[in-house]
This record gives sequence, C-alpha cells and structure tokens, in this order.
Amino acid sequence: MPRNILVIGAGKSTSYLLDYFLDKSEEEELHLTIGDLNPDTISQSISNHRNCTVFELNIQNEDVRQQAIAESDIVVSMLPAFLHIKIAADCIALNKHLVTASYVSDALKKLDPQAQEKGLIFMNEVGLDPGIDHMSAMQIIDRIRDKGGKILLFESFCGGLVAPESDNNLWNYKFTWNPRNVVLAGQGGAAKFIQEGTYKYVPYHKLFRRTEFFDIEGYGRFEGYANRDSLNYREAYGLENILTLYRGTMRRTGFSKAWNMFVQLGMTDDSYTIENSENMSYREFMNLFLPYSPTDSVELKLRHYLKIDQDDRMWEKVLELNLFDDQKSIPLKNATPAQILQYILEDSWTLADSDKDMIVMYHKFGYELNGEKHQIDANMVVIGENRTYTAMAKTVGLPVAIATLAILNKKITTPGVQIPIKKEVYEPILKELQSYGINFKEYEVPYLGYNPDSVSNGD
Amino acid sequence: MPRNILVIGAGKSTSYLLDYFLDKSEEEELHLTIGDLNPDTISQSISNHRNCTVFELNIQNEDVRQQAIAESDIVVSMLPAFLHIKIAADCIALNKHLVTASYVSDALKKLDPQAQEKGLIFMNEVGLDPGIDHMSAMQIIDRIRDKGGKILLFESFCGGLVAPESDNNLWNYKFTWNPRNVVLAGQGGAAKFIQEGTYKYVPYHKLFRRTEFFDIEGYGRFEGYANRDSLNYREAYGLENILTLYRGTMRRTGFSKAWNMFVQLGMTDDSYTIENSENMSYREFMNLFLPYSPTDSVELKLRHYLKIDQDDRMWEKVLELNLFDDQKSIPLKNATPAQILQYILEDSWTLADSDKDMIVMYHKFGYELNGEKHQIDANMVVIGENRTYTAMAKTVGLPVAIATLAILNKKITTPGVQIPIKKEVYEPILKELQSYGINFKEYEVPYLGYNPDSVSNGD
Repeated sequence: MPRNILVIGAGKSTSYLLDYFLDKSEEEELHLTIGDLNPDTISQSISNHRNCTVFELNIQNEDVRQQAIAESDIVVSMLPAFLHIKIAADCIALNKHLVTASYVSDALKKLDPQAQEKGLIFMNEVGLDPGIDHMSAMQIIDRIRDKGGKILLFESFCGGLVAPESDNNLWNYKFTWNPRNVVLAGQGGAAKFIQEGTYKYVPYHKLFRRTEFFDIEGYGRFEGYANRDSLNYREAYGLENILTLYRGTMRRTGFSKAWNMFVQLGMTDDSYTIENSENMSYREFMNLFLPYSPTDSVELKLRHYLKIDQDDRMWEKVLELNLFDDQKSIPLKNATPAQILQYILEDSWTLADSDKDMIVMYHKFGYELNGEKHQIDANMVVIGENRTYTAMAKTVGLPVAIATLAILNKKITTPGVQIPIKKEVYEPILKELQSYGINFKEYEVPYLGYNPDSVSNGD
Repeated sequence: MPRNILVIGAGKSTSYLLDYFLDKSEEEELHLTIGDLNPDTISQSISNHRNCTVFELNIQNEDVRQQAIAESDIVVSMLPAFLHIKIAADCIALNKHLVTASYVSDALKKLDPQAQEKGLIFMNEVGLDPGIDHMSAMQIIDRIRDKGGKILLFESFCGGLVAPESDNNLWNYKFTWNPRNVVLAGQGGAAKFIQEGTYKYVPYHKLFRRTEFFDIEGYGRFEGYANRDSLNYREAYGLENILTLYRGTMRRTGFSKAWNMFVQLGMTDDSYTIENSENMSYREFMNLFLPYSPTDSVELKLRHYLKIDQDDRMWEKVLELNLFDDQKSIPLKNATPAQILQYILEDSWTLADSDKDMIVMYHKFGYELNGEKHQIDANMVVIGENRTYTAMAKTVGLPVAIATLAILNKKITTPGVQIPIKKEVYEPILKELQSYGINFKEYEVPYLGYNPDSVSNGD
C-alpha cells in the first residue's frame, strides 16, 4: 500500500516538488494526489503519471477538502499563506502531518499544543526564504556554538534575480516571482535591525539608500537592503544577546539607487487610485508625480526633482522602461500607482522563454572563540534551467519535498508547529539538497564586524 | 424667558465663544449653560456670571446629556469631532439646532434628511479652517460668478503661527494648537491637487519640498505645503471644472525644508514604538535613525545622510532643538518616534505666558470675465492677545458664536446638515467678524495662474 501525499495547490513554484515525489514514487512507494482549482493547467507528464491522481479542489468546499485530507498520509499546502489555516484545522481533526513553505501565522501557531498532543508535525517555512535561510544559518550557528563560540554578528541576505546569461537590461533585474511583492517590497513600516548593539530604524523612503555590498566569487558584486523584520528571529535562533542582526534582500548593485526614484516619486504607493488611469500614457503617469510647469519638459522636471546629474546612468534606466513614452498607454482602470508601475515594469522585466533565473543567498557570521574573533561568510547561488524549472521553484520546492518524505519516513519525528531550525530537521534536508546542486560555499575571513578594535568612540 | 444656549466642552479654544454669548446675554436675552467634564477649569468670571450655569457633563452619561439638551434652545458642541454624533442624534430626537466647528462626518451627513424634515439647522465647519476659509472663499467666488465670471483657479492656505513680536526662534514657529496634529501633519496618504487641469500626487516624504511662497503686506513672506484633501470641496464650492485647485498649510519660509529633516529621518513615524525609549537621550534618539559607524559622530552622520552643507542654516535649527544633547533625556516609555519628537519640540516650541499667536489665511482666485483673465489675492491676519485669548480661539470661536445667535434669531433659516457656503450664512457672519478685527484684504493683481498665455507646450 503506497503512502499517499496530498499536495494542495500546484502553482508555478511546484515543478521540482511534484517531480521529486514522482521520481521517488516507485522506490519509496508513494502515491501523489494533487488538488488544484484548475487541474487542467497541470502538465500531462505529471497528471498522466501512473502514481499520480489529479482532482479539482476548491478550498472552500469543505467536504471535498476533508475527504482528500482524510485519505492522505501527509498534506503539503502550496496555497497562499492565508489559506493554510483551514487545512491545518482539518489536519488536526484528521490526524495528518502538514508541510508548508509559508511563514507561521499567529493562528497556526495556536495549534501547536494540539499538534504536539496528537504527535503531528506541522513543518512550515521550509522553502527558500523562509526555509533554506533558516537551515543553512542554524547549521553554522550550531557548529560555532558546539565549539564553544559566541555569536556576535549575523547578517543574511537573499534575492531572486536573473541569471548572468539572461541579464540583458540596465537594471540587471527581471521578475522571477510575484511582481506585486517586488513593487510593494519594504512598505508597511520602518525596517528595524541592530548594529553593534545599537537599534536602527529606517523609514521606507530611505530603505533603498541604506544598502550594503557583497562580492560573490564568480558572480561579482551584489547589494542588499534591509527587510522589515530583522529582529523576528532573535529568539528562534537563540541570538538574544547578539550585537548585530540584519536580514535583507539582494539585488545587483545600482538597482536600489534607481528603484529609489520610484519610491521618491510616490509611484509604489498602493493606498489610493489614480483618477482616469485608463488610457493614460506612460509619460502622463510620470507627470502626475512632478510639479506643474507650463514650459519645462517632463524629462527636465524629473532630473531636477530627483537631482539626477547629466551623466548619471540612472537616467538610462528610466529611458529603458519607456517612462517618457507618450504612445504607450496604461490599460488599467482606477488603478493605484503601484499597480500601474507594476504594469510598466512587466512590460520590460518579464522573463523570456529562454531566460534563466538565479537565486543568491549570503550569510555573514561573526563569533568569538577563546578570546579571538572570527568571521564566516557563506553563499549559495542556484541558476534555473528555464521558465518552468526555475531556480526559485527548485529552492522552494525541493526542501518542502525532502521534508515531506523525511516526515513520512520518520527521519523527522519531533511533533508540533515548527520551523526547520532543529538539527534533526536541517541536517538531512541540507545534505540531500547538495545532491541537487543546492549548496553553500563557506569562507573563513578576518573578522570585521562593524566595530574593529582599532577604532571606537563613535556611535 | 431667555433663550438657553448649551455649550458642550469648554476647552481652551472657547474663550471668545463664551465671552461673546455672555457679553450679549442681556441685550439678546440669552442664558448660557456650559456642560464640561471638568467644570472647575472654567474661569470664575464666566462661571459666576449671572446669565451662566456650569455643570459637570460626562458625554457618556445619557440621562444628564439628554436632559441638558432638552432644556436648551440650541446646542454648540466644542468636543472632539468623533463625539458629535451622539449629540446630533439627541438633537434630532429632541428637535434642537446644532452648531460645531468640525468637519462633517459621514455619520452626521446621514442625519440630513431627518434634520431637513424637522426644520433643524445642523451647522458645521463654522470655525476657522474649516470655517472662515469656506465663508471668505465663497463670498468672493459668488461675487465673481454674479458678474458672469468663470473661476479658473482657487488656492487657499491657512496657518496657526507665532506673532512677529513673539517670534524668537530659528524655526519661526511655536505650537499654538494641538502639537500632535502638527507632528503628524500630512501623513495618511498622498496629497492630491489639480494644477492647470493636471492631477498631481505628492507622497508624504516629498510634501515639505513642494512648497509655494506668498508675500503678505506688512508681514513678509510665508510658504505653504499641500493638504491631503484639496479635491474634497470641488463639488461643495461648485468648482467641478476648475483647472487649478490647491489647499494647503502656511508656515514661515524655511520651516518646511527644515521639517523635512524629521520626515526623512523617520522621526514623525507614529506606527511603531521604540525599544527602551525611556531615559534615552535626545542624542541617542537621533542616532536611531542614522547609519552605524564606529568612528563618526552623530553630527557628521546627520550632515552626510541628509546632505546638509557646512553653511546651511538648517543646521542651526537642529542645534536649537538640542537634538545632539546627550544629557537631556526622554521620559516616555515605549513611545513612538512621533511622540518622542513631539516631546523634544514642546521643550522648545511652547508659547511663553507673554507670547502671542497669529493666524494667517491666504486665498488666490483666478477667473475669466469677458474674455479677460483676472486674479484676486485675499489675505487675513489675526494676532492673539495672550495665551488664553489667542488668535486661534478668536477665529474658531467667534464664527461659531455668531452663527449660533444668527440661527436663534432666525437670520439663518435653511434647515439640514450643512457647512457655511450659502450667502444667507456667510454674509452676516463675515460682516460681524469685521467688527472684531477679523477681515480680509483684497488685491486685484495681474493674472498669473500657472500657465501664462505667452508660454505653453509644457506639462
């Protein structure tokens, strides 16, 4: 009798996830059941597989949903995060394990006592970011601690980018994930982090001007801007007394400075709609955010308003997006600035069929051991194969799949609502990920931190 | 039998309002009843007046509230705006007129049919801004229309400032009204206005860099930044097809550019609390918003971050507020940046006993008559007497008081929930305000608009 894995939601990030289960279905005696709102969109090679069943699932249909869960041995939810809670409640009622790649919501967290009592594993945040970031960081943090070291600094950055061979625009960026999230990134409150024991708060309109740089061997230079939530994992990672804690998003250098133009203009605002946005030209859209002038061109007004020098390459980035075009028009009705900006960017930043994406992750660890300070830099680069088999789908889907099978095979046994920060969880997953080319390079480097011993007195 | 006027809420803005009623109480046969949560704070000269009764009123106490309203002939609510609706419902039930200086809420607006049916006048927005701005603008707009003119442009600015004789700090500003509202001014969404038929949207972080200048004879130069709601009154004023509509807040020149420092740093943010804010020094507070450095001073970091040149007078404004002081400390627990900034500003910007405030209002009207374009500039300046008899209390309280008596005396008769934009309302009020020194100076000036005929092609 094969074990039945129920995957709910087979969106574009699931290519590697589904293949993993089917590739192992004979050897591991697995049957894969896929419930999706649009089962027709699932590729034939999957739906026709002898060990796979596909059915139409509207998550709001309680009977169908609960029956499918009841017939499964473990449930993987790849739905948007806010939909997990219904499935989780069913899993409690029906005694099933659950795996997701999403952040643990407060509602989900509340199911922990029940999951523990029933011996159920609810594994979350086991994709890329969150996921591989947790696992790879905890592996190094635990190793440092096991030696008796004390962690002083942890910085972690991750970015979904375009691969060098497909990188052919001035922004060195294309959308490889939900474009809306990219346009709204950083909104919703000040970013918070700690540097050398000092709290730092960065408002949204300064976020893209407070970047740091990183070099990755063979891939050149990147930059990072702060995420909102750097302090969230202090407790989970056991870093309560750490001096520097900073998590961020990676881009190619120069992206953030140019993106800041949109922030400064107010084009990323999603809180109000533009009157008469339909059929507005790109140029008219740009002009909404610039002072009125009877004589000056939109171009000169923008240069003056944002103080863009004549020889600043940012200018070419604006031109490349056709933002001064008076022929290209916006088809969106009563749209917010952010929706319109997204439309204009998708016009330029959509992956071509042959384009490959790239995932980059970068960790810095500073620690003290036997009175000496050390630093480890670790990075991971994954390049996608094509528009379906993306690096994003690979790095999100494979750890979810590996975790699922490890739970089925009782290699992961600790019950409860959790994230993959225990050795029992991250060791087998990281090890198996290596066989798929997902691995970190580590470098021992001189400790720099933010406060070299040679200097002080500042703040 | 004297007419009984019930004033609910006798806060600091009511000095002129209460005096007006008592001064006229014999001649007009009025009795003034004041219901306040803290009747002891009302001055003896008022509470001991033979035509005045003061009682303790908790607005949540329905019986006391309704009895007081039942015994009155008209009700004036000077409470915070969100509390008006209970009183308004009582006024409908008990057949009483109502006067407030607050914006009409949606809930209040819904009472219009009932008020009309019962012949009740619910007069709102009849203080300063909103209030005198509506009345003075509509008087000129109606006059232009009566001549057959077509309004092309309306700009209106108002500011509560410190009088020239009490203006002794580098910001040319002191708090003359609720300091919290000043710190949060402009937040909550992009400012919207129209210039020469083009919509313009300004995000909060650019608001204080998009100012306009005005000269007022005898008082020098002022600046204005846009309010959020310029488009709100298009319909009420009958300006649906106007080319330029802009409402804003006035400050002395240079204020906005310096205030922008706080906005850029993120110090006006009220959406999160600072960890360990209690006993933090002013200097530590400043440093929360600046990049970490082991060597550089907070001073240099600020200069560099905000690009403040060595000889920029903005610098002295920062120094004047003691923002680099490491001895002065913040007594607020878990406070937001905005709360802390308010505390620091109140330390410098509180009116002294002898200080006088100043209200400035400025309108520009552009219109076309018989094929020619004209412009009228109008301004009002009111100087306060002292910290109790402020220009603010005068310009808010007197139009409320005059409107109340005019309703009692049936000079204003049109029923319904309304604002003072009808001739029947604004004519008698503006006329009587003149006898209190509240009047506008008008200037016929060459039409400039934003789009002189001689030039075009821009946008």
